[in-house]
Amino acid sequence: MTTPYIGWASDEDLSDKSNQKDLIEKFRSGDIRALARMITLVERRDPSIRQLEESLRDAHKPARVTGFTGAPGTGKSTIVDAVVALLRKQDTPVAVLATDPNSPFTGGAILGDRIRMQRHALDPKVFIRSMGARGHLGGLSLASREAIRLLGSFGFAEVILETVGVGQSELEVAAVADTTVVVLTPNLGDSVQMIKAGILEIASIFVVNKADIEGHARAVTELRSMLHLAPKGGWKPPIVATVAVRGEGIDELWEAVLAHRRHLETTGLAEEQAARRLRNETAEVAAELARERTRRALEEDPGLSERLLRDGTPYRTAEEILRTRVDN
Amino acid sequence: MTTPYIGWASDEDLSDKSNQKDLIEKFRSGDIRALARMITLVERRDPSIRQLEESLRDAHKPARVTGFTGAPGTGKSTIVDAVVALLRKQDTPVAVLATDPNSPFTGGAILGDRIRMQRHALDPKVFIRSMGARGHLGGLSLASREAIRLLGSFGFAEVILETVGVGQSELEVAAVADTTVVVLTPNLGDSVQMIKAGILEIASIFVVNKADIEGHARAVTELRSMLHLAPKGGWKPPIVATVAVRGEGIDELWEAVLAHRRHLETTGLAEEQAARRLRNETAEVAAELARERTRRALEEDPGLSERLLRDGTPYRTAEEILRTRVDN
Repeated sequence: MTTPYIGWASDEDLSDKSNQKDLIEKFRSGDIRALARMITLVERRDPSIRQLEESLRDAHKPARVTGFTGAPGTGKSTIVDAVVALLRKQDTPVAVLATDPNSPFTGGAILGDRIRMQRHALDPKVFIRSMGARGHLGGLSLASREAIRLLGSFGFAEVILETVGVGQSELEVAAVADTTVVVLTPNLGDSVQMIKAGILEIASIFVVNKADIEGHARAVTELRSMLHLAPKGGWKPPIVATVAVRGEGIDELWEAVLAHRRHLETTGLAEEQAARRLRNETAEVAAELARERTRRALEEDPGLSERLLRDGTPYRTAEEILRTRVDN
Repeated sequence: MTTPYIGWASDEDLSDKSNQKDLIEKFRSGDIRALARMITLVERRDPSIRQLEESLRDAHKPARVTGFTGAPGTGKSTIVDAVVALLRKQDTPVAVLATDPNSPFTGGAILGDRIRMQRHALDPKVFIRSMGARGHLGGLSLASREAIRLLGSFGFAEVILETVGVGQSELEVAAVADTTVVVLTPNLGDSVQMIKAGILEIASIFVVNKADIEGHARAVTELRSMLHLAPKGGWKPPIVATVAVRGEGIDELWEAVLAHRRHLETTGLAEEQAARRLRNETAEVAAELARERTRRALEEDPGLSERLLRDGTPYRTAEEILRTRVDN
């Protein structure tokens, strides 16, 4: 890892095998631009990622993924920044992947990168990258998983996954992260809404940030009583109070993350989780391949398209395509 | 269409062919409970929907879909209610599909149904149904498309698609609707945020609701100047002012919807859109089939699962499964 890198790589032809080989060699030698480049390919759903996967098979090293989710304005980014600072004090390299499942556009994300980067701009062992959702729903989730695998293989053992925005993002984070940190503020509305959205089932740790403002004690009490409604047995999500702008509570938060990891390891859940995720990723990859094949088949065969339009039979058509066009 | 129907159908075995035949006959005879039942099957992603598609091939009749999207609190539901009332005055049967892409839970949606239903509860030619996103991302979109096809085949030529919630929902609506109505309020923040999210590209019509509150004129002016930034040529989205709680502006809104339809028809875009949507739906169906096959293959073949875990090779594994397991 030599230089911090931000933004989009250039557009050389990756179907050219020698360019691919070059990229893989650079990645293996620790060139962070090669890592950034590969993440761009993953984000674009470039076909060359299949070859890259194959070539990096022996480098497979899973990263630890800590996800941060919460409504806008809760101070998520400030907390993530403080956690990065903590890890860097321990000399741990760390990658931050900021995902926005709600935005198909990356303009805002890039701006976000530039702002966030300032603090860690000169630190070559911090890698920060934003990913917007391009194309279809679910694409981000798959791209995030693949980016995380690349980060792990590159040598970033710690990956922080942060969602920007609202909505389904909590579920996306929980599907990918080992430990999911849900950030709330003393604002009553926040916490009730979060609980309503089924957050209890996905939270490993709750952070009540802005612990210096009024209503904090009440929010913690309220949250605690809601947690009593959660299923008994297993991991009980701790509630950590932070004032992220002053760095307060960050050590405690990271301790809670480590405790959750120990829990996952000792119960065997860590292994189970890893296996389930890789199976999910494979199912999503298969879905993507099938989607592409179907689009191509319908483009190339006007007769098939016409029949589909006349009869309105997506299932029959999809099944036919999967049956006959498997070798593309 | 005999009785209004709300809620979940019972759980008889649909793999039983005689039950399937019975359901199809009831659907054909205009039994609205059969329609509701089939939408439940579609929402659950029940395998029997493939046979239902095949059996209803000759009944294929596309519905006109008008989508309504906008931030919570803009008055979307009130506008939809007023549009339903307008259509009913013209004796047009109408179905309302309320989708919440952000919620995997249906509890809230069902409650929403009950509240909304009151006004039209005794009208057998109004069908109202909520759909929550179950399972993976993208599932709602596919289920909505299939539900719309069922509504069309059943005889609902007018379908209103309303999103509940925030986030990616606008894009989902635009992907499925013929005409997309974006609802804003005079609140400056709303409109700017909407524009930021790329809404210009998907809106067929803008509604500035709550036209009786302060800031209305400014909001319209601002929106108009933003629309000038939009690409020239083609359809220019009109801005309709409404006070939905008093029913004001609803006639004008519906006129704008009809004008947009005429535009789609005369330019040939209607046909193009229909074809593109059916191709997209087929690609999503193929993706779903591939996803299921992959999960099943990994469950049934522990050796395959083990190799996947060891090597971290989702592409290789997915391709192998698609190549060898096409006949399941």
